Amino acid sequence: MSLPLGIATVCLSGTLEDKLAAAAAAGFSGVEIFENDLVAAASTPEEIAARCADLGLSIDLYQPFRDFEAVPPAELARNLRRAERKFDLMRRLGADTVLVCSSVSPHARADDDLAAEQLHALAARAADHGIRVAYEALAWGRFVNTWQHSWRIVQAADHRALGLCLDSFHILSRTQDVSGIADVPGDRLFFVQLADAPRLDMDVLQWSRHHRLFPGQGAFDLPGFLDQVLRTGYAGPLSLEVFNDVFRQANPHRTAVDAMRSLLDLRERHGRRFRGVDLLPRAPHLAGHAFTELSAGPDTLDPVTRTLAALGFTRTGRHRSKPVQLWQQGTARVVVNETSSAGVAEIGAIAVESADPARSRTRAEALLAPVLPRARGVAEADLAAVAAPDGTQVFFCRTGGDDTWLADFAPTGEDAGSDVGLTHIDHVTLAQPFDAFDEATLFYRSVLGLEPRDDSEYVAPYGVMRSRSVGDPDGHTRITLTGTLLRRGDWAPGVPDPQHVAFATGDIVASARAMRARGAPLLPIPDNYYDDLDARLAPPPELLATMREHGILYDRDDGGEFFHVYTELVGSRVFFEVVQRVGGYRGYGAVSAPVRMAAHRRHRLAQEKRSP
Amino acid sequence: MSLPLGIATVCLSGTLEDKLAAAAAAGFSGVEIFENDLVAAASTPEEIAARCADLGLSIDLYQPFRDFEAVPPAELARNLRRAERKFDLMRRLGADTVLVCSSVSPHARADDDLAAEQLHALAARAADHGIRVAYEALAWGRFVNTWQHSWRIVQAADHRALGLCLDSFHILSRTQDVSGIADVPGDRLFFVQLADAPRLDMDVLQWSRHHRLFPGQGAFDLPGFLDQVLRTGYAGPLSLEVFNDVFRQANPHRTAVDAMRSLLDLRERHGRRFRGVDLLPRAPHLAGHAFTELSAGPDTLDPVTRTLAALGFTRTGRHRSKPVQLWQQGTARVVVNETSSAGVAEIGAIAVESADPARSRTRAEALLAPVLPRARGVAEADLAAVAAPDGTQVFFCRTGGDDTWLADFAPTGEDAGSDVGLTHIDHVTLAQPFDAFDEATLFYRSVLGLEPRDDSEYVAPYGVMRSRSVGDPDGHTRITLTGTLLRRGDWAPGVPDPQHVAFATGDIVASARAMRARGAPLLPIPDNYYDDLDARLAPPPELLATMREHGILYDRDDGGEFFHVYTELVGSRVFFEVVQRVGGYRGYGAVSAPVRMAAHRRHRLAQEKRSP
Repeated sequence: MSLPLGIATVCLSGTLEDKLAAAAAAGFSGVEIFENDLVAAASTPEEIAARCADLGLSIDLYQPFRDFEAVPPAELARNLRRAERKFDLMRRLGADTVLVCSSVSPHARADDDLAAEQLHALAARAADHGIRVAYEALAWGRFVNTWQHSWRIVQAADHRALGLCLDSFHILSRTQDVSGIADVPGDRLFFVQLADAPRLDMDVLQWSRHHRLFPGQGAFDLPGFLDQVLRTGYAGPLSLEVFNDVFRQANPHRTAVDAMRSLLDLRERHGRRFRGVDLLPRAPHLAGHAFTELSAGPDTLDPVTRTLAALGFTRTGRHRSKPVQLWQQGTARVVVNETSSAGVAEIGAIAVESADPARSRTRAEALLAPVLPRARGVAEADLAAVAAPDGTQVFFCRTGGDDTWLADFAPTGEDAGSDVGLTHIDHVTLAQPFDAFDEATLFYRSVLGLEPRDDSEYVAPYGVMRSRSVGDPDGHTRITLTGTLLRRGDWAPGVPDPQHVAFATGDIVASARAMRARGAPLLPIPDNYYDDLDARLAPPPELLATMREHGILYDRDDGGEFFHVYTELVGSRVFFEVVQRVGGYRGYGAVSAPVRMAAHRRHRLAQEKRSP
Repeated sequence: MSLPLGIATVCLSGTLEDKLAAAAAAGFSGVEIFENDLVAAASTPEEIAARCADLGLSIDLYQPFRDFEAVPPAELARNLRRAERKFDLMRRLGADTVLVCSSVSPHARADDDLAAEQLHALAARAADHGIRVAYEALAWGRFVNTWQHSWRIVQAADHRALGLCLDSFHILSRTQDVSGIADVPGDRLFFVQLADAPRLDMDVLQWSRHHRLFPGQGAFDLPGFLDQVLRTGYAGPLSLEVFNDVFRQANPHRTAVDAMRSLLDLRERHGRRFRGVDLLPRAPHLAGHAFTELSAGPDTLDPVTRTLAALGFTRTGRHRSKPVQLWQQGTARVVVNETSSAGVAEIGAIAVESADPARSRTRAEALLAPVLPRARGVAEADLAAVAAPDGTQVFFCRTGGDDTWLADFAPTGEDAGSDVGLTHIDHVTLAQPFDAFDEATLFYRSVLGLEPRDDSEYVAPYGVMRSRSVGDPDGHTRITLTGTLLRRGDWAPGVPDPQHVAFATGDIVASARAMRARGAPLLPIPDNYYDDLDARLAPPPELLATMREHGILYDRDDGGEFFHVYTELVGSRVFFEVVQRVGGYRGYGAVSAPVRMAAHRRHRLAQEKRSP
């Protein structure tokens, strides 16, 4: 499958010039030019054509032409005049395909014969200009709103310059059954537009105009749709047409990369399922988090290491050439990088345990992840690293074997065991910048070969939050992404939002007791929480008393139970969590997040009061 | 109508402490405490009760209690245990009414008798604690989702401690027919919650959880609902319960004032229609814009006055005691205040021509508009001014008569006429901060006694914009508010967004010609715009050529036509528009706004290139 990959200018923010530059930089070979973008541009159509040629972009489609067919004669005359003007423009642009959407006009009639006849007339005029007309059924078309209906009309119109445009949104928003598309002859299919979307129960026009997503970011079966399309023999572009309020205001260079990544990922998902061809280096198996790196500055290094010690970690190594410490407990490892200039402690990197780090890196690179240069000392492990959309570094490494990265650290000789009993990193939670939430999900999912596992939305003291996790089926490698539903303003504290590392224990009570004895800054949880827990779930009184004593929070789902404690914030951005999963609990205790956030806020206000 | 006014903590952002303080400061006499706010709070219920007492707030409702009724016996036992715990909590809080929402539980049965029997049992236990149960039909309740159904069950349950809670959202989201509510005996109505909302075609639960608004900010007939409620004889609180994503993250002090203003406004709208009682000083007639004040700093004073001169304005006066100039043309007046420290030219104030400035001010004050102190010289007019939510000052003045504010200006002796022929201020457009859009609409509407007239949403180069105008039926006083659909990030330029003053002319072509001759910086509009206009609307070729020559933009609606030109930005935030309305055109040419924004952006980029 090597169809050209395109993108509509509506997907991107900025002027037409910004959009073209971003599309080309991300590797697209063509664009659909949306009329409004051209109308607002100062460049002539010839200048735009020349610019596209310079950038290596073909203009695959001019769009849209609306409310054309099945109208009274006077209206038809006006519409044909309008079309002639647009054909003229397309000649100047060097574009040879125009999109005609099924009518929503109040003047249109429910008359397929009339629609076919008028579209035939349009196609005949288009053909005179060397132009093809791609007819598309809008999901909210007045009479024509299914692809089957548009196909019947195209067949009835019977003109070689009239074919079909299929848009995955218009089809999949109405039905999950895409069978039959494969039977359309490939040369009658003039254009294919791809868009994903979350399942929303709302007016389909509003859903389409505001909430589309790139393939793999929503709930639609794009691989299944693509399969049908390819079976037609279609050889035109696969072109993204995504109306999304966030993308419309975000940096178009980032959006275009996200868009291209979505197509590469879609090709892989499709290829895997239907052809057995690897279009990308396959994602190696990940066995969990090898380590998490915290950057700490002069003000935060001491609080971070003191907290790690209180959580039962031991400094087991010092990097041989860099100001970096290794802290360990069980197989939970935290690397503390002392070089943060900002002074704020934060998660600088996550490291996953890859069965083949080199292939992981090649795959990441193929998915447009920026590969980071690493300063290496003599005989130090070559830790492959790429940058995630939020700036977090992602390392691929192998801890066992001869070439282990652990060899980069000179052992302190201290034992990595402790009475706290933390065993490994359960998950890492990374707060995402507002514009990057969907991009980040796609990045972590596709680059690491993980799957989205959990999606939640909850009301926190300073606004609605959402949280989404990606992981493997075995739960070895879990990453949770959090974000705000709306970009916050001045009122809400804590922008950027905190991140955290969650460590696993087999006995939360013993761990909490031991951490407390070591002076860990465990977050106090209000009595009101336990009174409510008692009212809601009536846990055994002794267990409730123990949870209350240690500030242990609780959740349960169909699979099992979840017990967890948090620490206070260390600095302004990072905290730790210790979790115990009982049975097959799959979540992250999101129900308790607002309680945690209010408690962190109180702690912060109390600190500010102490040292104004 | 002097029922107590309350607000639910869910309407406000922050910790419970923040919310209580904001509610009290805005003058509410009571609050509904939402369970999650209490659960996350560190204060004990007794401490919260004491805090409310200190603030003069009663705790009118504890909410919600969910999924109680019509369940199997084992579930009922669990639910009664849960209720006992909550009654205990309410005793500690000093709250005597609990909200019970109609069940959405999968365990519930479609059995009204069972529901009534179990609610009777609940009420009996509540009564033992001196507590009343207010039963509310959720719009998405599994079996009970209309107020009539909940009322039948309350009647069947027949316990003095069980009554009805009516929430305007749950009722008006399903029907516009509220008749029948008035027949409920007032003492069986235990609680009334008020919320407005825009009409949205989406899942009602999502609509309710994210998009509610304060009364008067949405599309619901709240006065009609309130009328029914009052006719029952209900004497409890009118309490706002508004779930809104923006309010949840905005400064709660501002939100609480907005909320209180919505109730004062609702009381007036209700009182006017049903009782003939003035609860607020009635809004005096406004005869248009008396003037608009531009603040200019050292860098922008010269460009502003040069532009005004090029638009045909004359400096007709100098303020007798302040560094303020008066520019005039016809009855269009611009006051230029030279004291802006920021250096950015912006609209500092709008002034409306009021039939009774003193009453306008009293009304504004009654609607919680902050009254601004004015430094007055001897014998200077007392210009009453209040601050709008976006910081713009709003003056109420009378230009004619003996005490005219014009007397504050020493005439320069120059004539206010010109060959440009601008006659008056058509409208002023004020860009709103993201969190303040709905608040601003309510403010301008209620304080000035105007009506919302126009609402549009359009895609601009850097994101989706919305625009809403308020005005009087005669079109004398028009104010347009613009905002972004999402709060913008770093990519989009022009935050804060530009503002502008639009002047009216009777002959756009003559005005454009004269302004051009005077060197006015009229905004060039791309040829692509005119080619598209030709394709779309086929204007007479001569007219099209003239519009193209002068950069005149065009729109039409059912009532008439609209011709307009823009200037370049003067400084970074202000520009001017000249408009001609032909026939009864009521809009503002929003369709052309993206073209204007792209042109302004080009101008800015070209400027930056010239002086980097």
